[in-house]
Amino acid sequence: MNLFASFSLASDNCSPAHPKLIESIRIASEGYALSYGQDKLTSKATDRFKNIFGKETIVYYAFNGTGANIAALSALTARSSAVICPSTAHINTHETGAPEKLLGLKLIGVPSKDGKLAAADIERLKCLQANFHDASRDIVSISQTTEMGTVYTMDELKLLCNTAHENNMLVHMDGARFANAVAALNCNPKEISRDVGVDVLCFGGTKNGFVFGEAIVFFNPVLAERFDHLHKQHLQLASKNRFIAAQFDEALKDGFWIEMANNANEIASYLEYHLNRIPDAEIVFPVESNQIFCKFPESQRDEIFNLTGCSPDAEGVTRFVTSFCTTKEDIDALAEKLLEL
Amino acid sequence: MNLFASFSLASDNCSPAHPKLIESIRIASEGYALSYGQDKLTSKATDRFKNIFGKETIVYYAFNGTGANIAALSALTARSSAVICPSTAHINTHETGAPEKLLGLKLIGVPSKDGKLAAADIERLKCLQANFHDASRDIVSISQTTEMGTVYTMDELKLLCNTAHENNMLVHMDGARFANAVAALNCNPKEISRDVGVDVLCFGGTKNGFVFGEAIVFFNPVLAERFDHLHKQHLQLASKNRFIAAQFDEALKDGFWIEMANNANEIASYLEYHLNRIPDAEIVFPVESNQIFCKFPESQRDEIFNLTGCSPDAEGVTRFVTSFCTTKEDIDALAEKLLEL
Amino acid sequence: MNLFASFSLASDNCSPAHPKLIESIRIASEGYALSYGQDKLTSKATDRFKNIFGKETIVYYAFNGTGANIAALSALTARSSAVICPSTAHINTHETGAPEKLLGLKLIGVPSKDGKLAAADIERLKCLQANFHDASRDIVSISQTTEMGTVYTMDELKLLCNTAHENNMLVHMDGARFANAVAALNCNPKEISRDVGVDVLCFGGTKNGFVFGEAIVFFNPVLAERFDHLHKQHLQLASKNRFIAAQFDEALKDGFWIEMANNANEIASYLEYHLNRIPDAEIVFPVESNQIFCKFPESQRDEIFNLTGCSPDAEGVTRFVTSFCTTKEDIDALAEKLLEL
Amino acid sequence: MNLFASFSLASDNCSPAHPKLIESIRIASEGYALSYGQDKLTSKATDRFKNIFGKETIVYYAFNGTGANIAALSALTARSSAVICPSTAHINTHETGAPEKLLGLKLIGVPSKDGKLAAADIERLKCLQANFHDASRDIVSISQTTEMGTVYTMDELKLLCNTAHENNMLVHMDGARFANAVAALNCNPKEISRDVGVDVLCFGGTKNGFVFGEAIVFFNPVLAERFDHLHKQHLQLASKNRFIAAQFDEALKDGFWIEMANNANEIASYLEYHLNRIPDAEIVFPVESNQIFCKFPESQRDEIFNLTGCSPDAEGVTRFVTSFCTTKEDIDALAEKLLEL
Repeated sequence: MNLFASFSLASDNCSPAHPKLIESIRIASEGYALSYGQDKLTSKATDRFKNIFGKETIVYYAFNGTGANIAALSALTARSSAVICPSTAHINTHETGAPEKLLGLKLIGVPSKDGKLAAADIERLKCLQANFHDASRDIVSISQTTEMGTVYTMDELKLLCNTAHENNMLVHMDGARFANAVAALNCNPKEISRDVGVDVLCFGGTKNGFVFGEAIVFFNPVLAERFDHLHKQHLQLASKNRFIAAQFDEALKDGFWIEMANNANEIASYLEYHLNRIPDAEIVFPVESNQIFCKFPESQRDEIFNLTGCSPDAEGVTRFVTSFCTTKEDIDALAEKLLEL
Repeated sequence: MNLFASFSLASDNCSPAHPKLIESIRIASEGYALSYGQDKLTSKATDRFKNIFGKETIVYYAFNGTGANIAALSALTARSSAVICPSTAHINTHETGAPEKLLGLKLIGVPSKDGKLAAADIERLKCLQANFHDASRDIVSISQTTEMGTVYTMDELKLLCNTAHENNMLVHMDGARFANAVAALNCNPKEISRDVGVDVLCFGGTKNGFVFGEAIVFFNPVLAERFDHLHKQHLQLASKNRFIAAQFDEALKDGFWIEMANNANEIASYLEYHLNRIPDAEIVFPVESNQIFCKFPESQRDEIFNLTGCSPDAEGVTRFVTSFCTTKEDIDALAEKLLEL
Repeated sequence: MNLFASFSLASDNCSPAHPKLIESIRIASEGYALSYGQDKLTSKATDRFKNIFGKETIVYYAFNGTGANIAALSALTARSSAVICPSTAHINTHETGAPEKLLGLKLIGVPSKDGKLAAADIERLKCLQANFHDASRDIVSISQTTEMGTVYTMDELKLLCNTAHENNMLVHMDGARFANAVAALNCNPKEISRDVGVDVLCFGGTKNGFVFGEAIVFFNPVLAERFDHLHKQHLQLASKNRFIAAQFDEALKDGFWIEMANNANEIASYLEYHLNRIPDAEIVFPVESNQIFCKFPESQRDEIFNLTGCSPDAEGVTRFVTSFCTTKEDIDALAEKLLEL
Repeated sequence: MNLFASFSLASDNCSPAHPKLIESIRIASEGYALSYGQDKLTSKATDRFKNIFGKETIVYYAFNGTGANIAALSALTARSSAVICPSTAHINTHETGAPEKLLGLKLIGVPSKDGKLAAADIERLKCLQANFHDASRDIVSISQTTEMGTVYTMDELKLLCNTAHENNMLVHMDGARFANAVAALNCNPKEISRDVGVDVLCFGGTKNGFVFGEAIVFFNPVLAERFDHLHKQHLQLASKNRFIAAQFDEALKDGFWIEMANNANEIASYLEYHLNRIPDAEIVFPVESNQIFCKFPESQRDEIFNLTGCSPDAEGVTRFVTSFCTTKEDIDALAEKLLEL
């Protein structure tokens, strides 16, 4: 039995793990170590985060993206909170109601053209904050990159965070693909997170070549107070955390995580170039990172699924996601077949 | 910097992962695969579970023990439920209130001498089930092996499960160390789970040489209906589940998981033999698996911590946990130093 | 100090209680009675409900509308549920996130022109039910009368309930103003609830002249199984329930509850007639029960607040609510002053 | 049909409401008033509370005792909290798991001889507060009077509150029968609540002659910040709150609430005197307020139920509860029949 597909653009989750990260797990297993993140590798990985984001940064680790989001949001959840987010936010559409079920949060999904929330959305909704009949809007959640593959600019982020803070709201950033945003903006990671005013960042590993593992990065130290309880309570404390830490230690070294994301973004751009040459293919969002949303004629969709593993959504739009391991040769081969359609 | 301790009995979580299981991850990463457990490796691992527990068995995977317990219990939780468990149960003492916070369950912790619940406990508490002022006692949760390292016999399990079912209660088994119980009883795994009437088993990997990963094994198919939603909602669906599945596939092959647990149990027994020769050491629970609880004079506790990484609890009792990789030589060296104290 | 306003259309909640209902409380207090709804008056009130809705009807009582909705929804909430409702639903806008916080429900608020949900909305959303990334859409919640004062026709209700049931969804009806709907449709109450397929009805008392008190009326007996626990757990079991029951016993006698609602509706209609004569007043929803939404020029809004106690919303629309005790004389006096503006 | 029992000691909840309080509802209904507690009667009642407990006191109202407890505890619940309480606490035994289900709290029920928690219990449990595997013990909950009818002395309360505060825990007092404690200690209500350090008091009305209604009295203003949202969210905001307020306004006037409780306590004491004369009756807790727990021979229990409406618990102990309306004549008649047994 062949366990693997030869190729897939269905998700960066369908990609393998990077061999260097698997090797880091192997090395991390060479002896005994304290459990529950009290080990030296966890400290080492956390130091790397502090080097990137500033030494006051407080870091916890998590198993997966939903887990990181839930645990992070648990720290922001005060009295009777609601979360303002784009209606397309992952927490609103693909986490099976976990924010509602596990945290009791009300999500206020704002319609959005390209996956982005606007400062004006916050302004418009803030009037509901004081009314005790309304769940109090205390949290703003944005995804960077967005679920549509678009990327907030530094100015957009500044305005959003300022508007939120002026209205006593906290900002959570779902960074399942934060690496792709850093690669896209070619900036210092700190500039689009701590410096613009994000309070807590969920920093993704899994989609960027990890076996598993995410990090919860607090820039606002008040929110991290006694988070150790919430972290465990919301199921994100790995007993053998060194295996998550080992991968972060390796990935954060010498910008290797950005290098992987860079490849994904560049290949997406290369695929965009090819798609633009196909008469019937219509790209529906600006291609700014490693996701491309493209509408094909109905007659071609089955074949496209066979070639890429990607099925269209209800509107007939197909999403392609590239990763650290997608190659130009993969795309050339695909493009050739697409042109034949 | 030396990242590792040379030796530890503090927990089986302090042990490394078994090299064969890390290698299984490496091999699982050799291509693209479907995410969220739709991949072939996940099917292969699940088939192994079915071979062991019967072909009607329904299997889901989880990140860690607390996660497995929470997700499994979410499937048992009906209207206004309470859980009867020994007061020493992991879900009651070491999961930071997650069953209460995430599931809204009321835990009825029954005092227990050796970590075991008795059928009489269920009989005594069932009278509260019908009264609408009481949270309805609908779930019984037991740990096999127990948190005290003791092991329920097959007859004890049968009686417990029968009593529970006669009173319309469901049985959850926390099997974070289920492998050690199977090794201790030298029985067919099915005999002490499905056959005695357990409804859902949380089958541990992490403590038994895994990098990470647990399984939720349903014997009662009604409870598994639409569990896919609950599984994701309670944060336990790995996007790259193949890496959990790969380890189970490897571990379940030819009884390798029991082999690892056997070593842990045998070494614990060997350590027990040595401890019995130390005049001031008092073993406080029968040693039946891979945990030993031993009381030492206060003057020796610091040195014992230095030698083993184990600190005493409030009553001065120290817990030693052996694992797949603890060796006789480790114990011989330790015993020599203990005798010197 | 004058404790009372002379007149208000701000809400039917601003009206006093009907003297007959206060008198029913006084009479209910003439001796000892069992607590927690085990008393004879509670049985008597429940019999009245059975006479109206069918003898298989199961009735519980509640303190207020939000409490009735929460407790009723708790009985519908199965594995990982989401609720489809109009975005304007009271549970979505004015219950401070209680469904999310207390029940963990995800509310899917569907944009709605006149407060009504359409069968097409259910059809459109049902595709998300099977996907484990989505909170499963298991519940449809509608308000009768709606929050806009409109009234579902019997045919609309039939189609909605059929569509819901065909898709394995349950139907909750928020009937805080159910009496006004019955009065508006001039129908048998059973015809627009049990007969069309509603599973559970929250039957309002407070807004219809009660001191306090609502009822939770189950037509689907499966949902009522062991509801006694959920009822208490969700804070709706009154220890002195006879005082709620006494009011229902009185109100349900000889259709007195419909008589009160009839007055409210007729007076609203009379107010509509007057408003239509005011050149600048624009009624924005069809007036079908006891609520009128009307837009006035900005210059008149302060004076309208002084006359009626009603303030405009963000869009400048003012809501008037009539009740059992609003009189034609009240409206004549008001109309005169409005014409002067 | 006779709707009422002629006599009952089953609970103070089986008593009628005091005619003066029903009359207060009638008067409160003489006109229009703002809803949701914005009315003048609510202000008036709150002023009475401030006169008693100090002008910084912040008061909210609630429908019933469980509702008051849940809403009050919601304000104390911070990150991952557990509540230390006597195992006999009402919140632990008779609220159907509502604290766990609605607030996610873990209750740590401490065995107690007479319903009282001791400062030593707090000291013993505080060591678990810092460990992230444990739900953090942040709240102490005590009942005054206790569920056993005993009454904490002022010194006991001071020591308890001081010990709690020294360990960063907050103190919730379930005062469903607070009036009976004030009557028993013959003290200023403020002395055994605000002055000893209680953070929030649930002040009972229902058991003390009300139709319905409780108050949540905050002495710690930080806890009351934005409580208006939590109050509504936890289902305790009455739309026609004036009817709860009216009763408090009347009851708090000239100490009428204490007068009612005084009668209950005195009659209980009178019943105790009679019970002591019955050879086979064994009173099992000190009689300090309006509850008496008494063990009778098995042969007498049926007859005692017939006489009083009180059934024995599993240990054969019968609870008698007196109220504002129990009379000496009632007790004399009962005593005569008891002596005949």
